[in-house]
Amino acid sequence: MSSVFPLRPHASLEQISTPCLVLERGKLARNLTRMAATLAVRGVKFRPHFKTAKSVDIGLLASPPPLGAITVSTLREAEYFAYHGWRDIFYAVGLGPGKLDRVTALLRQGVNLVTLCDHADTATAIRGFAQREALTFRTLIEIDCGDGRGGVPPDSAELLPIAKLLGPCFAGVATHGGQSYGERDAAGLARVAQAEVAALRTAAAGLHAAGYPSSILSLGSTPTALAATDLAGITEVRAGVYMFGDVYQAGIGSCTLDDIAVSVLAEVIGRPAHRPNEFLIDAGAFALSKDISTAKLSPEKNAGYGLVCDLDGELLPGLRVANTWQEHGLVVSATPLPPDAFRIGTRVRILPNHACPTAAAHDRYFVVNRSRDVLTEWTRVNGW
Amino acid sequence: MSSVFPLRPHASLEQISTPCLVLERGKLARNLTRMAATLAVRGVKFRPHFKTAKSVDIGLLASPPPLGAITVSTLREAEYFAYHGWRDIFYAVGLGPGKLDRVTALLRQGVNLVTLCDHADTATAIRGFAQREALTFRTLIEIDCGDGRGGVPPDSAELLPIAKLLGPCFAGVATHGGQSYGERDAAGLARVAQAEVAALRTAAAGLHAAGYPSSILSLGSTPTALAATDLAGITEVRAGVYMFGDVYQAGIGSCTLDDIAVSVLAEVIGRPAHRPNEFLIDAGAFALSKDISTAKLSPEKNAGYGLVCDLDGELLPGLRVANTWQEHGLVVSATPLPPDAFRIGTRVRILPNHACPTAAAHDRYFVVNRSRDVLTEWTRVNGW
Repeated sequence: MSSVFPLRPHASLEQISTPCLVLERGKLARNLTRMAATLAVRGVKFRPHFKTAKSVDIGLLASPPPLGAITVSTLREAEYFAYHGWRDIFYAVGLGPGKLDRVTALLRQGVNLVTLCDHADTATAIRGFAQREALTFRTLIEIDCGDGRGGVPPDSAELLPIAKLLGPCFAGVATHGGQSYGERDAAGLARVAQAEVAALRTAAAGLHAAGYPSSILSLGSTPTALAATDLAGITEVRAGVYMFGDVYQAGIGSCTLDDIAVSVLAEVIGRPAHRPNEFLIDAGAFALSKDISTAKLSPEKNAGYGLVCDLDGELLPGLRVANTWQEHGLVVSATPLPPDAFRIGTRVRILPNHACPTAAAHDRYFVVNRSRDVLTEWTRVNGW
Repeated sequence: MSSVFPLRPHASLEQISTPCLVLERGKLARNLTRMAATLAVRGVKFRPHFKTAKSVDIGLLASPPPLGAITVSTLREAEYFAYHGWRDIFYAVGLGPGKLDRVTALLRQGVNLVTLCDHADTATAIRGFAQREALTFRTLIEIDCGDGRGGVPPDSAELLPIAKLLGPCFAGVATHGGQSYGERDAAGLARVAQAEVAALRTAAAGLHAAGYPSSILSLGSTPTALAATDLAGITEVRAGVYMFGDVYQAGIGSCTLDDIAVSVLAEVIGRPAHRPNEFLIDAGAFALSKDISTAKLSPEKNAGYGLVCDLDGELLPGLRVANTWQEHGLVVSATPLPPDAFRIGTRVRILPNHACPTAAAHDRYFVVNRSRDVLTEWTRVNGW
């Protein structure tokens, strides 16, 4: 008699259509545990950022039931994760007034949506809208700790007027040490981590002295979240790309190449006889993204558009994706390749420079174990 | 008595959620007409490439009923356009043997799918598969006319063996003058156009002399399609990005900035008081792509990540998207901005460097006329 649960005939990496996004379950789990454990030891609340993974299945592993606090980068993510049960969601991009309608819809569904603001005009729009809709929602003032993107400096004269305009919507301060991506070693990452902490402490102290105590002091980036040591006074830490890691993160020391959990499965489609150091794959700029961030690292760390692994995920030294077109990737080897290697139809896996844009090019993950078995597919929520 | 067809209350660009992809119907139509008319005058068949538009609605304008020959860059596009009725489809990327199953499924549905091959191993795989499946399908040998991506040189000793291995599947030759993107003026584009023609003539003549006449001689790229003059012997021309144009194409002279039909609608979300030349928008690397190809042009043509227009699509001189993060774009002005300009909530439209990757980040087009009215939405087929 056969089981009512027969083993389903699952696919393997030899069979599925290329290019596609592969996620190693074991490495994902290890990365999630490492970050959660690091922050637990430091005694600070973790608010994982779902901007990289954008998947409810990964979300349930990174923020398991009872579905605690999370971070998102788009309102579509907020709507998707709210639909799947999360209720404490920080939308960590400066809010545009044109998005207040969608914010309201989420609030009316019972979502505790935390928003971000760094300008008096935004604060005025938020407060006016909250009053008209008879809603109060928590807004954090964005502090620039040296990143130079959004936010006001921690000692800015603008800080208090913004808090006053927010009124009951004011809930605290947030910063992102994005300049950590410009660091090259542990000491540099620790310095940026401390700059994040110092910026929030300064800003919150000034606001508190003026009668605006912060209930949330939120900071983070993957490199600084692991590098921070003194988090006294900080109420929560955010990080996102740590779930997958990538070649850039390995280049600045926030993970190792072996930690990288995502790769793009590709097939060799060209093997020019007159160019013995090269082959073409069917993963180009669309499947890998045009990210060339590792070119900013040292020449030996420049991965072009990605590093090359065999089908088991083992790194193949000396190979990198040196050029891309829409649907072609050109792999170049430091030394001539044997004629029998990388023949037409050979499958390889490309480790991405930057996991976020690479993953965003795909609508799903093919989840694998270490034996090339595709265990399941997990979908993503892209777009806005 | 009211009409049974009341005017529907359509949205305007002031109302829809940002960031999103905007398509100007009038400019699209003008671009389509220009290319079709140019090639009609030259008396050559046009096989438009759907890799940029990836939309059945645009496809129906570019290749109207009776739905003639088209080009695609992925098998998903081939499947999508076949579903919508097209039957003569050239998949213009070197075929990987792992895709033969999907090719077969299309052939069995009655699709005349033309494939591309530049290697003896691929030819062997195609022929073996065709024999096992009792199918004959047309395959073109890819010729490298100087692009250095795929293909064999036009006088290569590999050419005849590949044709022999393909046997009854051999149908002709194809090339793509991708090096046209490296040209800077009309004379350079004309040179590359002539290199495409010469390469196909040389390759086809050699094959013909050996008993392998080509029924298809297929070439093209947007710049060369408009620059070619002597197309005698060529059976078809391909082009894709001409439908939309982009800042790069304008930079090399294959369109004007005013021809660009796509833009990304964005909202001002940051206006740092201490950086009077800058503002932040909610279209970052994900909504615009990381393409920085115009940096390869002259400094005055370097658009960063895109040029900035007002809500009516009028170019705002001196502004460009100088930096991007995942969901932030930094617009920098050559001169300090008046405090009242680009206030929080202002909407702008960004012209993309390269229309293909920018469009690929979005799942639909918001189609507009010149009056900010959103007439309809057209969906896209992304992925593989």
